[in-house]
Amino acid sequence: MKPVNIGLLGLGTVGCGTINVLSRNSSEITRRAGREIIVKRIAVKDIAKQRNVDMGAVEITDDAYSVINDPDIAIIVELIGGESPVYDYFVQSLQKGKHVVTANKELIANRGNELFKLAQKHSVVIAFEAAVGGGISIIKALREGLTGNRIQSLVGIINGTSNFILSGMKEKQCSFEEMLAEAQELGYAEADPVFDVEGVDAAHKLTILAAVAYGVPLQLNGVYQEGISSVTSQDMQYADELGFEIKPMAITTRNDAGIEMRVHPCLVPQKRLIANVNGVMNAILVTGDAVGPTLYYGAGAGSEPTASAVVADLVDVVRTLTTDPENRVPHLAFQPNSLTEIPIVPIKDACTSYYLRMNAVNRAGVLAEITKILGDLQISIESVIQKGSGENEEMLPVVMVTQNTVEHKMNLALQKIQEYSMVVGDITRIRMENMA
Amino acid sequence: MKPVNIGLLGLGTVGCGTINVLSRNSSEITRRAGREIIVKRIAVKDIAKQRNVDMGAVEITDDAYSVINDPDIAIIVELIGGESPVYDYFVQSLQKGKHVVTANKELIANRGNELFKLAQKHSVVIAFEAAVGGGISIIKALREGLTGNRIQSLVGIINGTSNFILSGMKEKQCSFEEMLAEAQELGYAEADPVFDVEGVDAAHKLTILAAVAYGVPLQLNGVYQEGISSVTSQDMQYADELGFEIKPMAITTRNDAGIEMRVHPCLVPQKRLIANVNGVMNAILVTGDAVGPTLYYGAGAGSEPTASAVVADLVDVVRTLTTDPENRVPHLAFQPNSLTEIPIVPIKDACTSYYLRMNAVNRAGVLAEITKILGDLQISIESVIQKGSGENEEMLPVVMVTQNTVEHKMNLALQKIQEYSMVVGDITRIRMENMA
Repeated sequence: MKPVNIGLLGLGTVGCGTINVLSRNSSEITRRAGREIIVKRIAVKDIAKQRNVDMGAVEITDDAYSVINDPDIAIIVELIGGESPVYDYFVQSLQKGKHVVTANKELIANRGNELFKLAQKHSVVIAFEAAVGGGISIIKALREGLTGNRIQSLVGIINGTSNFILSGMKEKQCSFEEMLAEAQELGYAEADPVFDVEGVDAAHKLTILAAVAYGVPLQLNGVYQEGISSVTSQDMQYADELGFEIKPMAITTRNDAGIEMRVHPCLVPQKRLIANVNGVMNAILVTGDAVGPTLYYGAGAGSEPTASAVVADLVDVVRTLTTDPENRVPHLAFQPNSLTEIPIVPIKDACTSYYLRMNAVNRAGVLAEITKILGDLQISIESVIQKGSGENEEMLPVVMVTQNTVEHKMNLALQKIQEYSMVVGDITRIRMENMA
Repeated sequence: MKPVNIGLLGLGTVGCGTINVLSRNSSEITRRAGREIIVKRIAVKDIAKQRNVDMGAVEITDDAYSVINDPDIAIIVELIGGESPVYDYFVQSLQKGKHVVTANKELIANRGNELFKLAQKHSVVIAFEAAVGGGISIIKALREGLTGNRIQSLVGIINGTSNFILSGMKEKQCSFEEMLAEAQELGYAEADPVFDVEGVDAAHKLTILAAVAYGVPLQLNGVYQEGISSVTSQDMQYADELGFEIKPMAITTRNDAGIEMRVHPCLVPQKRLIANVNGVMNAILVTGDAVGPTLYYGAGAGSEPTASAVVADLVDVVRTLTTDPENRVPHLAFQPNSLTEIPIVPIKDACTSYYLRMNAVNRAGVLAEITKILGDLQISIESVIQKGSGENEEMLPVVMVTQNTVEHKMNLALQKIQEYSMVVGDITRIRMENMA
């Protein structure tokens, strides 16, 4: 069969990885796809820049539209990232009848609903496996591997930078700031780390995963976000004593009230596989009503792992070039006319257990008062750690794990405990998931 | 779009699970597939048998050919298992232009090469996700998710019964025989457990995985098989002291010499995720040159987990009903005319490290003599455990872990050690994988 020409927009880390993988494995890829995939033209910002990649006969340009408008190019691979000017590149490509492969979680989470409609109108595909979980084919697993299931929940470590920082804080017993500096030195975190450590990146990814899991539109504004910057190595130590790890989790569940979507640090029992996923690695635990729990693990970022997902999408698109559009795998797993509206459960109605840490004055009756505040709100305590050498210390740390309760009750309890004069300073509150 | 009629052959555990999943989740499945999937006719051995499943308006027959020959049925789902008479059912179905979905690892491993050719001739698909790893979509991950990669190795726990037995022996410190009896009581092991515990079932599955990973024909006779029945809880204890778990592993790697395929119990470092996969759960670690290590975990057997894979295949087939056959995902991941012949490396040339346990006479110089035999064959020792209260005991257990060596050297060493008069009884030898 005739080779397929593709065009690249962007030649950063993932772009170079994609060129390298396509070239090194071209024979295996052609044997799988049934035809050769040829990179014809690449648009970059700075043509003069030196790159560690063998470009061969590929045409380089600084005009993205000269790639999009090239009539010999059937598939556009967008690896620039962000919303602007990329949104317009997408619109132009789709309108010209070109398929688009992308790693752009931000654009898909924010504008995917309209872009998928436009793609459908022009009978083309937007493929976005590389947008979530790097080399882990989690979009494929959800859209194709688990089609028999009613997906019940999805719990994942989907930001490698945050996982690297928390794993390192545990292993080296150092602070968030120290590990962030190390992550920046190693190139795992940007100079401005907010996207990674404050949960923005994970929220983009969770938006995509939830839509594909449940057959609902992308709803980024329904995701509760809380970063990892307030986690201390002291909390890691206490969590360890209680049999837990603190992990940067993205969680979505569905129950009668609707869908929960939340990104926050979370205590996970040490015996769970996902509690043992460390460094920059990602893992996603998906539970379906037929299959039960399934886990997908791999590198969540990086040049060639992400390129692996880009090339998988390319082969998929090449394999479906002659499929009639109605029979292709739908963008959001479910047929576009059958997406449903399910209410988003606000974080105040989420039901989890909690890890609490506070400093209390070392005096008889203080613990009783704190537990009474919780008890009056029907919040049961699972375990307590109270340490310190006793009488000689003025203040004692109190660490508690509660049983499941609804978040607005916990908020009320925390407000009352904070008002109690024997508790000094801020109370640390971290959510927990048992994943039983 | 028009509904698709399917016919079932067999209504055992997986058959009933498939009926239940299709019926319970019919609305979500239809929303994903774009059309309804209707079970029209089921062939069973014994029509009178009571089954715990709501059959609705489905026609039941004891004549498989009346399902295969039904002109309204587009897809045959074969859930009987074994080679005979199923092979003939496949041939008839394919010749009638019907797609076949199956969970039959034995048939695919033994006759897949010819069946895929026949399917190609008649422009139909044989889908076999359910044949390996139950509900884990590992075939899809290899054939579609990792198409950008040169797959380097695949290491998996793919027989749930064996994993249940070994996990139980560790946890309860009991014997193989006791755990086998428990597995049989719980329905995890057949009355004749040879297929599961002697590695036959895992060899069928590994044959399929290796073919799909490397683009080679199915070659069951190239798989080295060793069961778990000789593993003792004493070995589990020693392994634990050394920082390892003993797991029932299926391993395939590729190097310059060719492809290794082997099924045997194996020591795995406790810190690896796969060492923590217990009970009947399965997990497969796939390493590709671009993506690095990836792991897929889930229920490897059971009614609904396996049905999950059957239904995923059904939706896939339905989605590709109108695809022109040349553009479908190839059965063995690579285009049929591009399968390659790569030599199979015999087990004697496999290179691993080893756990050795033997009983030696408690006398000075004995350990020195044993280590000299190994040293003369350039086999390095990584660690030794020698225990016992010392002088008063006549015999002492000696446990050793070697560094990597080629198997035929180890065979020679074991022969020499066995001949040494101070070593009494059989030597236990278990292979190890570091998976660094």
